[in-house]
Amino acid sequence: MPLQPSRTIDELHELRELTGDENGAQRVAWTHTWERARKWLRGKLDGLGLEAEIDEAGNQWWTLRGRSDRAVLIGGHIDSVPNGGWLDGALNVVAGVEVLRRIAEEGEPATTVRLVNWADEEGARFGRSLFGSSAAAGSMADQDELRERKDANGVLLPDALRDHDVDLDRALDARRQLEGAAAYLELHIEQGPVLESMDLPLGVVLGTFGVERHGITWTGQAAHAGSTPMDKRRDALAGAAKLALELRGIAKRTGEGAVCTSGNVVCRPGIVTSVVETAEQLLDQRHLDAGKLASMLAEAKEASERFAREENVGVAWKRIWAIEPILFDDDLIELADGAVREVAGTSRRLPSGPLHDAAEVSRAGIPTVMLFVQSLRGLSHTKLEDTRTEHLELSVQALDRLATKTIERVAAD
Amino acid sequence: MPLQPSRTIDELHELRELTGDENGAQRVAWTHTWERARKWLRGKLDGLGLEAEIDEAGNQWWTLRGRSDRAVLIGGHIDSVPNGGWLDGALNVVAGVEVLRRIAEEGEPATTVRLVNWADEEGARFGRSLFGSSAAAGSMADQDELRERKDANGVLLPDALRDHDVDLDRALDARRQLEGAAAYLELHIEQGPVLESMDLPLGVVLGTFGVERHGITWTGQAAHAGSTPMDKRRDALAGAAKLALELRGIAKRTGEGAVCTSGNVVCRPGIVTSVVETAEQLLDQRHLDAGKLASMLAEAKEASERFAREENVGVAWKRIWAIEPILFDDDLIELADGAVREVAGTSRRLPSGPLHDAAEVSRAGIPTVMLFVQSLRGLSHTKLEDTRTEHLELSVQALDRLATKTIERVAAD
Repeated sequence: MPLQPSRTIDELHELRELTGDENGAQRVAWTHTWERARKWLRGKLDGLGLEAEIDEAGNQWWTLRGRSDRAVLIGGHIDSVPNGGWLDGALNVVAGVEVLRRIAEEGEPATTVRLVNWADEEGARFGRSLFGSSAAAGSMADQDELRERKDANGVLLPDALRDHDVDLDRALDARRQLEGAAAYLELHIEQGPVLESMDLPLGVVLGTFGVERHGITWTGQAAHAGSTPMDKRRDALAGAAKLALELRGIAKRTGEGAVCTSGNVVCRPGIVTSVVETAEQLLDQRHLDAGKLASMLAEAKEASERFAREENVGVAWKRIWAIEPILFDDDLIELADGAVREVAGTSRRLPSGPLHDAAEVSRAGIPTVMLFVQSLRGLSHTKLEDTRTEHLELSVQALDRLATKTIERVAAD
Repeated sequence: MPLQPSRTIDELHELRELTGDENGAQRVAWTHTWERARKWLRGKLDGLGLEAEIDEAGNQWWTLRGRSDRAVLIGGHIDSVPNGGWLDGALNVVAGVEVLRRIAEEGEPATTVRLVNWADEEGARFGRSLFGSSAAAGSMADQDELRERKDANGVLLPDALRDHDVDLDRALDARRQLEGAAAYLELHIEQGPVLESMDLPLGVVLGTFGVERHGITWTGQAAHAGSTPMDKRRDALAGAAKLALELRGIAKRTGEGAVCTSGNVVCRPGIVTSVVETAEQLLDQRHLDAGKLASMLAEAKEASERFAREENVGVAWKRIWAIEPILFDDDLIELADGAVREVAGTSRRLPSGPLHDAAEVSRAGIPTVMLFVQSLRGLSHTKLEDTRTEHLELSVQALDRLATKTIERVAAD
């Protein structure tokens, strides 16, 4: 049987029916609905003669043995955020199923081919994204911190994992899965507006942005809104407001591909009759170039200190999280470009703003590349997330072509 | 017995012990601690031969009959915010007790003299300040809305009032209390830094600022912080930040005595990985001049519409509350100036930024004036609120002199 991209669409609809509701996808990792999705996925691959296993971090693997032990991996994640979209994560694994079917039915491939459904890419329940892929990549350095992590109902992360037969203390044993991996391929919706604005169905991802994520606390003085003259105020909100606006200038001066976001400001006491005493501000900065990312951070820090002086308030920075930019494999980028051009005529290379499991695999030294398919209105993490059917079908074809080219390349090495 | 201002200080300490804790005063209206304070106050006036009553709005009254039925009123409020200061409100009533004692012990005064402890000036539990005084003034126009009002634990306002023998439906019957009132006097801490910055213990209040209080909703579009280019964003926080900063210019251009405050911004979804979709901003603007207040509001609205266009976001205004400026009585201001000069050498006239029960009484057409005593660091609504002992004693003396002068003036009319 040749590749049937329309079957991928049908199966995605089936998954949506099974694990979504009127508010969107509900496949949050470490929940019953997620297990239902995983079981459904297992059923789709039954009867193809694959070796199926679940590793110590909860990742699902299917292996088609080839003439060489060197393996080409195709990956994605079936978990979603609460009230999520039907494609983010699921497209990757369901398209991977179709590609694996096509390869399996043609007989023993030149290299081993494996499909992986990573556990908890989104981190929606415990705020720790890329769980399974970071365990497999050996980059999960925060196990001690994760032992204390609780969900919104106070359930500890290790207890929730145990309910799904995952022992946090053994999660790093998943590292053995990447031994012998020669390439990693991942398809994903873009989750941004770039391809749509260029009227292109598909793109090739150069890598994932480095991220600097900080909490900034501005400290002024609460004072009565009626009785405190303007020139006697120490208004914490003024510092946060100036920085929120300055960020746009910082991104602009850095040039194309730079993004800076202030996603929240929490004011205290936060009442109509008081000057703001403390403002807790969130900052997220991203760039594909490590040097430019460092410059953006330094500029924001300098600006914040200037604003603190101007407003006679205090400012303190705390790093929440950071990751360096991760550049995908040049050879695989070339192959992916070729695959996209063959199915869509035109290709476009672009960076990924969001992180993906592919970044963890790439950090582990496995040659990696991703394909992006256009997102309508750039929306994701909402039930409004969507992609045109013809673009979804093209994306399955492109992943298939890329898999073929990669197997040939690995086999020839 | 002559006036003993030091007794007022002792009694304020006693009240603090009885109704405060390590976090400050806890005399929130419609609570047990507030009732304890009211009972304590009643005890202080026992044995002076006064008529005591509680009106339909929960206000406590003590009446010393004079040769004329025309009454000079002295008022304050014993309720506080949670974790409040020891002086805001309580100073007024406890100093009033001392003045009433002095007058009562001198025999029948020329006019009737009454002390009132207004119920729920702060509105701390239900968010509705000036409860008792607005009922007595006949300006409580929001009874229907109050019937639905709940505290943080979901208790309905009418139910909480009933626990203190107040029937919301009858609260406006308290209006009869102001019949025959010829003057209203109120002493209060300044709650601002003006007198301290001029090194003056006492001031005379010209009136209370008019207030315009609005909720402003900025509406943009949630979008992924990593994948949404800067020029494709519709960031609601940008609108709120621009307005928060613009407010200072509006106040400055309006001139001395203008204050504008943005006390809160609530961002949604409020997460580090998303552009802010909605920002709910609070605005409070005050001025003693109605025309200037209206101009400040118009300027802020115009600016917000300009910012909404610049940022491609929506903006909607909703008035939360407003009150016109209230100017106190010219003759009483003169008398108060004289009283302050007699006890402190120098007087200073200044507006009040915060509202006070005196504003409600003045709105009801009763000639009204207030005295301010210096606040250290301008702090109030915190346990850090304080005033020097010698200034507190001067304030009791000034209130006493003002009461004497006012009784003489009313008797002579």
